[in-house]
Amino acid sequence: MDTRIILPQSEIPRAWYNPLPDLPTPLAPPLDPETKEPLTPEKLEPIFPRALIEQEMSGEREIAIPEEVRNTYSLWRPTPLVRAKRLEEAIGSKSRIYYKDESVSPTGSHKPNTAVAQAYFNKAAGISRLATETGAGQWGAALAFASRMLGLDCTVYMVRVSFEQKPYRRILIRTYDGEVHPSPSEHTKTGAEMLRQDPECKGSLGLAISEAVEDAAMNGDANYSLGSVLNHVLLHQTVMGLETKKQLEMAGQNPDYVIGCVGGGSNFAGMMLPFLPDKLEGKPINFVAAEPKACPTLTKGDFRYDYGDMTKLTPLIKMYTLGHSFMPPPIHSGGLRYHGGAPIMCNLVREGLVQAKSYFQEECFEAARLFQATEGYLPAPETSHAIKSAIDTAKQAEPGSNVVFLYSGHGLLDLAAYDAYLRSELGNYELPGESIEQALQSCPDVE
Amino acid sequence: MDTRIILPQSEIPRAWYNPLPDLPTPLAPPLDPETKEPLTPEKLEPIFPRALIEQEMSGEREIAIPEEVRNTYSLWRPTPLVRAKRLEEAIGSKSRIYYKDESVSPTGSHKPNTAVAQAYFNKAAGISRLATETGAGQWGAALAFASRMLGLDCTVYMVRVSFEQKPYRRILIRTYDGEVHPSPSEHTKTGAEMLRQDPECKGSLGLAISEAVEDAAMNGDANYSLGSVLNHVLLHQTVMGLETKKQLEMAGQNPDYVIGCVGGGSNFAGMMLPFLPDKLEGKPINFVAAEPKACPTLTKGDFRYDYGDMTKLTPLIKMYTLGHSFMPPPIHSGGLRYHGGAPIMCNLVREGLVQAKSYFQEECFEAARLFQATEGYLPAPETSHAIKSAIDTAKQAEPGSNVVFLYSGHGLLDLAAYDAYLRSELGNYELPGESIEQALQSCPDVE
Repeated sequence: MDTRIILPQSEIPRAWYNPLPDLPTPLAPPLDPETKEPLTPEKLEPIFPRALIEQEMSGEREIAIPEEVRNTYSLWRPTPLVRAKRLEEAIGSKSRIYYKDESVSPTGSHKPNTAVAQAYFNKAAGISRLATETGAGQWGAALAFASRMLGLDCTVYMVRVSFEQKPYRRILIRTYDGEVHPSPSEHTKTGAEMLRQDPECKGSLGLAISEAVEDAAMNGDANYSLGSVLNHVLLHQTVMGLETKKQLEMAGQNPDYVIGCVGGGSNFAGMMLPFLPDKLEGKPINFVAAEPKACPTLTKGDFRYDYGDMTKLTPLIKMYTLGHSFMPPPIHSGGLRYHGGAPIMCNLVREGLVQAKSYFQEECFEAARLFQATEGYLPAPETSHAIKSAIDTAKQAEPGSNVVFLYSGHGLLDLAAYDAYLRSELGNYELPGESIEQALQSCPDVE
Repeated sequence: MDTRIILPQSEIPRAWYNPLPDLPTPLAPPLDPETKEPLTPEKLEPIFPRALIEQEMSGEREIAIPEEVRNTYSLWRPTPLVRAKRLEEAIGSKSRIYYKDESVSPTGSHKPNTAVAQAYFNKAAGISRLATETGAGQWGAALAFASRMLGLDCTVYMVRVSFEQKPYRRILIRTYDGEVHPSPSEHTKTGAEMLRQDPECKGSLGLAISEAVEDAAMNGDANYSLGSVLNHVLLHQTVMGLETKKQLEMAGQNPDYVIGCVGGGSNFAGMMLPFLPDKLEGKPINFVAAEPKACPTLTKGDFRYDYGDMTKLTPLIKMYTLGHSFMPPPIHSGGLRYHGGAPIMCNLVREGLVQAKSYFQEECFEAARLFQATEGYLPAPETSHAIKSAIDTAKQAEPGSNVVFLYSGHGLLDLAAYDAYLRSELGNYELPGESIEQALQSCPDVE
């Protein structure tokens, strides 16, 4: 049996799996940030196309994937499911370890799965440009790629400190003809105002979101795109889990553990959601969400309404949150530093259907190095959390178990982080209870 | 039909193809640099294991690939053969364009194909450490990866200017536990002597070779590894062409053009050599070697004996050469700046079996950008020469032709070069005839 399980392109899923109708408890509705009343779809129309708003609240279990999206997916999909035999041997595992390899996409992560879909539905709605924010650049690169493939323009507001210190993903965005502005920028009122107050301002993700949303809301040709958290983003990411189901069937195996790292939650959810119906039918599948101890949203946060961003622009959403004012320590997993989490995923954690675990930064880098030393490839720091969790799980699992994790991206543009690790300059961060208590006080008083 | 043609791992070749018995004119023997007499195998034993020396001069058409090498290859092989349909459409091609994707290897290029084989045969000979040189770091990363997989130590002498200016591949080598010294270094007599003369010396590839060879020759536990030019290196690279043959058969197509970029020649030769017997039997296959006009070895060099390195340490080899004192202009394709070429490839050019073409730097970057805009992936600057050549060929070829090129690596660690291109800071370089004449005068007077 091959260690890489490959599906033909004809097996790229024809429909995404929408978990909304299957959730044991329905999602609490997002609330208008001003009125605190449930949000109406019309409120979202200045920045999202109707098709995506419909997906956001659809009751259909299956939502068809348009042929142009499948066609673009075929540049890298279906992605391989790989049996990590050398890793198993190195840890003396009696379980099989499989990883779903999303690092093979053009920008090196799972992000293009939703970027391509979002670009498609915006284009179909007559939009000619997408605006978004990006921190380290993983999402910005994915959206620039997708826009290039679908023939849209793309404007990326990149947190200034990353723009200056991490030039590689910024250049990658430029190679896809994406326009990149360091945020705060002079291109929006929000940015210009901030620069007037503080010309040296290094920016923040919240501020970059504000700029991108303003750009989209003020310009009729442009819409806004978000790379995680929202229901439609998780929906698009289910292609990963849907393929994995088929691949495990080809290998004649059932999954016992499905593991992913968690920032906003889209990679983990995109992997595990297609297995949710099986679990609800009684199959003994364990879903494990791996997060950093430095940003322990699911393991230490409160389940309540909070803003999605620091600047309180977004609707209020019910989720596990550390408080929207939470400032995470400077860990190298830039994609895992979000104060909240996708409502669908938080709902499943709340129901006890998903188990959350948290890990120190250094033990994750150690796991990444072991993966690299055995399987050959260098993982992204974010992905290392899933690897650490998979290794721990495989060691403790019943012999013969199948441990499946999502390999969300490669680390070739994160080499500075590995350099810091090799120089023993990383350090561990665990939030003390008091500082979490304090951050949680920023949550609004809404039931 | 899928655009990606995938072989199962069971189809990883079981033997490399050795072209030596099939060459219409035998290779001229390498000469001892002191005596100018044909080199005896014993001369090579201080730095190479016997198995590789035997491969270097073997008369066997097939050389078995050891199971441990196939097993390590299976981490990324067989690599996909991809139909570049979107590229075809963009250029209005009436030919099919296929690319063999070697960028999927753990270090992102074709280099691990020989690195793994060399590590294996050295380990089998009781060697515990490999020493090598690297310029931009592509070969150093591949050998560090291979050494890590096979359980050897690896010492890389990296040209100091690259060590300082291109930290990413240096860090990648370190993540594979490779030891990296900026060259000149204090670790060898050659390096220490150079530093005494010039403490600020930025190094050169020739100097780094000298350090690595000295390290290997002086230390019984260590051997030397070279990433191109030698017969055994090309031999190992034939896995690429052997797989491509099977993949084209699966697609029901015969190749009309087989194209690769050329520095030392190992990626091009590894791709085209397995098709050589077909051409010798009369099949109308065209082999095209694409080189930079800034280093026009095959199109403007002389076919004669020359040293393999600037410091005249290597045997004299008969090849196309610009003269070992040739200093190439500062183009961004670091891997294509070699003054000579692999004897096997040069022999085929000399026989008229391989056609060489040269290209300007900017037109290659343009081709790379078109590839990225259509197929999604960012190519290495070296690879862009093959892409440019494939695009030109497809446009001019008989309708219905099959144009197959080797996609030797991705450009994710070459983003600085794309940044320069986007800023219009690249420029073109074409060597004037006089400067080639002058460089050729450094060739030794040996017939």
